Amino acid sequence: MKATAIAHTNIALIKYWGKRDKTLILPANSSLSMTLDQFYTETTVEWSDAFMTDQFTLNGSRIEDTKVTRFLTILRQQFGMTEKAHVTSTNHVPTAAGLASSASAFAALALAASKAAGREDDDETLSRLARLGSGSASRSIFGDFALWQKGTDDTGIDSYAYPVVAPTELDLAMVVAVVDAGPKKIDSRLGMQSTVETSPYFEAWTATAEKDLLTIQDAFKANDFKIIGETVERNALSMHATTMAATPPFSYLKPASFAIMETVHALRENGIEAYFTMDAGPNVKVLCLTKDEQQVQTALASHTDQVYICHPGPKARVIAHD
Amino acid sequence: MKATAIAHTNIALIKYWGKRDKTLILPANSSLSMTLDQFYTETTVEWSDAFMTDQFTLNGSRIEDTKVTRFLTILRQQFGMTEKAHVTSTNHVPTAAGLASSASAFAALALAASKAAGREDDDETLSRLARLGSGSASRSIFGDFALWQKGTDDTGIDSYAYPVVAPTELDLAMVVAVVDAGPKKIDSRLGMQSTVETSPYFEAWTATAEKDLLTIQDAFKANDFKIIGETVERNALSMHATTMAATPPFSYLKPASFAIMETVHALRENGIEAYFTMDAGPNVKVLCLTKDEQQVQTALASHTDQVYICHPGPKARVIAHD
Repeated sequence: MKATAIAHTNIALIKYWGKRDKTLILPANSSLSMTLDQFYTETTVEWSDAFMTDQFTLNGSRIEDTKVTRFLTILRQQFGMTEKAHVTSTNHVPTAAGLASSASAFAALALAASKAAGREDDDETLSRLARLGSGSASRSIFGDFALWQKGTDDTGIDSYAYPVVAPTELDLAMVVAVVDAGPKKIDSRLGMQSTVETSPYFEAWTATAEKDLLTIQDAFKANDFKIIGETVERNALSMHATTMAATPPFSYLKPASFAIMETVHALRENGIEAYFTMDAGPNVKVLCLTKDEQQVQTALASHTDQVYICHPGPKARVIAHD
Repeated sequence: MKATAIAHTNIALIKYWGKRDKTLILPANSSLSMTLDQFYTETTVEWSDAFMTDQFTLNGSRIEDTKVTRFLTILRQQFGMTEKAHVTSTNHVPTAAGLASSASAFAALALAASKAAGREDDDETLSRLARLGSGSASRSIFGDFALWQKGTDDTGIDSYAYPVVAPTELDLAMVVAVVDAGPKKIDSRLGMQSTVETSPYFEAWTATAEKDLLTIQDAFKANDFKIIGETVERNALSMHATTMAATPPFSYLKPASFAIMETVHALRENGIEAYFTMDAGPNVKVLCLTKDEQQVQTALASHTDQVYICHPGPKARVIAHD
């Protein structure tokens, strides 16, 4: 009744931004991501009748995390179990990089919990399970590139991720520039909710994202890095634009984020194909070809000491079980 | 057949962003502005049969300006004249402040041209005329606060500005922080056009602006500076958000603009009511009460040497004529 799993973080190339169902974590639009080799979460789950309560240990410290507690309750319902769980997680992310992601956390937790329960869930089921912990975790079940289809069913049965074929002729890299490792001012769930409820641009955002998703899939097939990159960049800016029009307006981006975006544009003007994307925080992730990754890293290093070169990473996997 | 007029720049509190008719410069939404006392254009127009061509002298240098040439042709049509014009303009704006505005330019030119033609156009007519040179110039015919109603008629007959009653119990100031005095990368007309044609958020923007306009007018009447300021800030961010979602995405704002916005938020957290707005360029204008203007200036001075305190300015006026 004990298993350990690893899942890697992923960065959305087409963003998930906004829920159509908060309880089941059903998204308003489909999204597409690249799983990163450098950052991952390793999680051990043990289910036992002998445990009086759920327990969660993160990076060596016992903590109370309402999202984890809530997720364990959901898993018990899904698995038809009554046992409590002891969960031990380690985030393999450079110290204070601010890149610890709920995506890798809930994907690793879903997989380890399933295996420890003696189940043999397929990837589709695991993706749906992980989604119930954190939306973007549905994509971290898979390596390389994954598409989380929003689905249309009210039960969430058709809302899960699956692998998409990578642009086979392109060697892609993601160079991550850490701008501010401090805690986020606005939790991504709250920011998403405020956007859905108050931004006049939200409806157009979801339509834009669906269109961008078709564009980037075509560009993947055509190995057209220019279209891939331009779509990634435009999609990220469109997402962040929705928050600027919310009431009250807010932004996850800092002046340094914008300075890095300018550097990326300058790189392009100098012939280096590099395109940025940002999530619900100030860090900037730059998509480029591996042949240019060193030059991109050097350019970003003028803004921050913390720059990491990542490549497409592996799928979630069990590394130990009883 | 010669007259000299002065018109002051204005800063939109509710932005004009997007045309429904490019030739007649009819806006997609109504807007509301504050005229500034510190920055103005002084323009002399002489109409004469003896002139072979139109001539335009700006700040002492003869230049070719297609917008001015085009506007003089329009004025001749409107006035039923054939004479050519010699136009001499001086922008009374601190050197290289990047605040020379087409609003004051075309308002002063419209007024001087009308007077020099021996006409006695009323303010409504002058506002319509100025609009044909540059949309925001329709508002610079008036002092203090002006509302440019978008109108609905295809001829533009009902698209002009008029004065709105100021919040009588509030002494307002606008502190202007010049971020980058260099030439704009993207002309505001082109930026506007790209937004109208490609931004999925444009339609929602126009609806938002109309709603913000009602909100701020109510707040003017109620002398509610908090609502005024929050509306101004949200409206500006909503406008700039439209450009981030255009194809290709673009922004008039620089990293330093965002740094100043953060400073304004910090001022508010320290109890100083200050709210930012930005136009089609990186400069940041901060609306506050006169009692706080020195503190706002001091805070902005940490970002740039060029900070100017402005107050509501006078309406356009003729200062000399034959």
